[in-house]
Amino acid sequence: MQKSTEAVATRGSTISLENAADFLRDFETMSGFGATGNGGVDRQAASDADVAQRRWLADRLEAHGLRVEYDRIGNQFGLLELAPGAPYLVVGSHMDSQPTAGKYDGAYGVLAAAHAAFRLAEQWAAEGTVPQHNLAVVNWFNEEGSRFTPSMMGSAVYTGLLPLEAALATQDRTGVSVAEALGAAGFLGQGDGPVAACCAEIHIEQGRLLENAGTTIGLVSATWAASKYRVVVHGDQAHSGATVMADRRDALYGASLLVVAARELADRFPGILHTAVGQLDVYPNSPVVVASRVELLLDLRCADEAVLAEANTLLRERIAEIERTSGVTIVSELSHEWGIDLYQPEGVELARGVAERLGYASGEILTVAGHDSTNMKGLVPTVMLFVPSVDGVSHNEREYTRDDDLVAGLEVLTEIVRRLAEGALSPARSTEGGVE
Amino acid sequence: MQKSTEAVATRGSTISLENAADFLRDFETMSGFGATGNGGVDRQAASDADVAQRRWLADRLEAHGLRVEYDRIGNQFGLLELAPGAPYLVVGSHMDSQPTAGKYDGAYGVLAAAHAAFRLAEQWAAEGTVPQHNLAVVNWFNEEGSRFTPSMMGSAVYTGLLPLEAALATQDRTGVSVAEALGAAGFLGQGDGPVAACCAEIHIEQGRLLENAGTTIGLVSATWAASKYRVVVHGDQAHSGATVMADRRDALYGASLLVVAARELADRFPGILHTAVGQLDVYPNSPVVVASRVELLLDLRCADEAVLAEANTLLRERIAEIERTSGVTIVSELSHEWGIDLYQPEGVELARGVAERLGYASGEILTVAGHDSTNMKGLVPTVMLFVPSVDGVSHNEREYTRDDDLVAGLEVLTEIVRRLAEGALSPARSTEGGVE
Repeated sequence: MQKSTEAVATRGSTISLENAADFLRDFETMSGFGATGNGGVDRQAASDADVAQRRWLADRLEAHGLRVEYDRIGNQFGLLELAPGAPYLVVGSHMDSQPTAGKYDGAYGVLAAAHAAFRLAEQWAAEGTVPQHNLAVVNWFNEEGSRFTPSMMGSAVYTGLLPLEAALATQDRTGVSVAEALGAAGFLGQGDGPVAACCAEIHIEQGRLLENAGTTIGLVSATWAASKYRVVVHGDQAHSGATVMADRRDALYGASLLVVAARELADRFPGILHTAVGQLDVYPNSPVVVASRVELLLDLRCADEAVLAEANTLLRERIAEIERTSGVTIVSELSHEWGIDLYQPEGVELARGVAERLGYASGEILTVAGHDSTNMKGLVPTVMLFVPSVDGVSHNEREYTRDDDLVAGLEVLTEIVRRLAEGALSPARSTEGGVE
Repeated sequence: MQKSTEAVATRGSTISLENAADFLRDFETMSGFGATGNGGVDRQAASDADVAQRRWLADRLEAHGLRVEYDRIGNQFGLLELAPGAPYLVVGSHMDSQPTAGKYDGAYGVLAAAHAAFRLAEQWAAEGTVPQHNLAVVNWFNEEGSRFTPSMMGSAVYTGLLPLEAALATQDRTGVSVAEALGAAGFLGQGDGPVAACCAEIHIEQGRLLENAGTTIGLVSATWAASKYRVVVHGDQAHSGATVMADRRDALYGASLLVVAARELADRFPGILHTAVGQLDVYPNSPVVVASRVELLLDLRCADEAVLAEANTLLRERIAEIERTSGVTIVSELSHEWGIDLYQPEGVELARGVAERLGYASGEILTVAGHDSTNMKGLVPTVMLFVPSVDGVSHNEREYTRDDDLVAGLEVLTEIVRRLAEGALSPARSTEGGVE
């Protein structure tokens, strides 16, 4: 802490020693919501911990003069309206988490956005500046998707990628819908949220490229391509002891062959193809019954679209082979797919310039994981930043980013927010350019 | 139906045409409890359907003059006390089922026992015979073990193989204990149930050996040996997209390798080794998180003890190899183990003689699946019979046994029950030989 705040002070940044200390104090308080006792958090979307944390954030935003609003999918906005009628720079991330997750993922980006807004509100008021865009701090609903599928739900509805009604009707495993969960918590608003002119998000890397390169600020230039499948493996119930092996059509055996095949696919394209099965459910899942059905989610993520296409072909071939050899039937549905998807290059250049001026090593990086900004960049110019993750640990209670890097990210984000709000990526002085 | 009852009539059996029709009518009524609509049933232990069916059975038993009692683990007994103070021939099976199971498994054996008792009560009364043993029709609690583990719970407590308190404290996945479930249904009795002198059970084969051989009555001479493991695969949570493959310790990948290994083990010893993983649970089971923990149950069942020992050794070697190559840690605990375990040969001979006298083709057979009689035979002389399963379909809604075979089994069981009650496998005229 001492080192970074000294650095901040000597750099003459917009962030003072006190500001940095205040941010880190808030971050610690915030990390108490849903704390697991192992340094992590469990704040699945609209859970008690997520609800309590949102209320805390609302208080913090209101204490700094921002008006708190919710849209119809429960995205939480803190609005700083300085240019009446102008569209908004939307800056933030998400505060929900995976079960037993790290405390940085998403939450860091929301708090950094809030503190950037607090600082800039003071500075603009002191200078008498009226920026081109208003400012909306956002806490997107259900980015993680662990309780309600799909992930990035709030930003997907906001950007029109997911119908509102479908999102509201989505149920968790106990049958509670998004509408019920958000309604009970008082987070279902009336409108569509503020009109966006541009967007910024800061997030931890969730990998180790920045750490390995000794780079503090990652300038996210594009997403990896991805293919995501919902798979159902159909077998036939049988006695797990008595039924002769040759008569079995074991859905769990077929599913296991598929999990192994997915890993072998990644091994074939080292470094540029990531594959995973994170969720798998067995039916009837009884000790003495051969499974009749297994449902699983299988993802391929790739830094190269041609390789991804080849991997998809190999996967289809392997599925057919598994069906032949194990007697199961495999139904796979491509539920999401996207290519290498660029962030606006002028946003990357803007961020590079800010990092350079503030004296931080920066470099372009691709994001493997999806983020709310991935949805937003299709709608408005969007800047995405990463700060390093120690050892690349992610979706794990041991996830860790050093205070120095948290403060550096806050500092760079604050300056980028200032420039974006002042029109850096927008047509000169206009109230248009939004999504009316 | 017509054919079988004609056969019965011409054979001059203790079972009349009317008795057979009455039995099949009762079987149809009984199969309505928890009926799934696909010809099967879902009557997990102490579920609403199981409770309703037990009440129906109690009514049927009482209508024929049997006194209904429950012991402290909820085993349901219909007592026919003809020789005051004498121990009991315990005859029956279980009425609980797997989820979406067949209607014959267990339920057939309980109903056949009840009808055997109904007929013999009439005949002994008409003859003025007082048998050596009293008669207890039994519906063992939770044989299937799908809701509450372990399986064969009721007979395990009755025979002293499982402590009562441990059984009562066992919880289902929603946290309901056996004690709570049985208490709420009114099935928790006070005592230890009737004292056994001997035991008989009839069950469907759950395989296709009898069908292939054209044999009607299987004389069960022994169990297959078995080794059952509880396995926990430990990995480490990570981001299923962002984390580089080399950094992952994916518990689901490790578990899948183990499921595949179990199958390959069975393929190595065709026909004499059955292996299975029927239950597998993933944590945190989120779409975008590499699993940190997978729990599964792995069984080996074998017709040859030496082969089973070799298979266990190969399994241990394969587990160590999976740990080395996938980075997971695998903790396996041998939860149950038994060898080739004989039924009393004199019981097999008794059953062979009865089948022969009644004109049914019979043959010795081993049981791969466990049954309540497997527990009972360690306590008292026990006779176990099988009738054919069409295509060997088991633990499946399509499970099917022909009416002819159901009635043939009832007829053979009734005569065996008569002989056992009259002392065929017991020391001459004594009230001892039980389990006081």
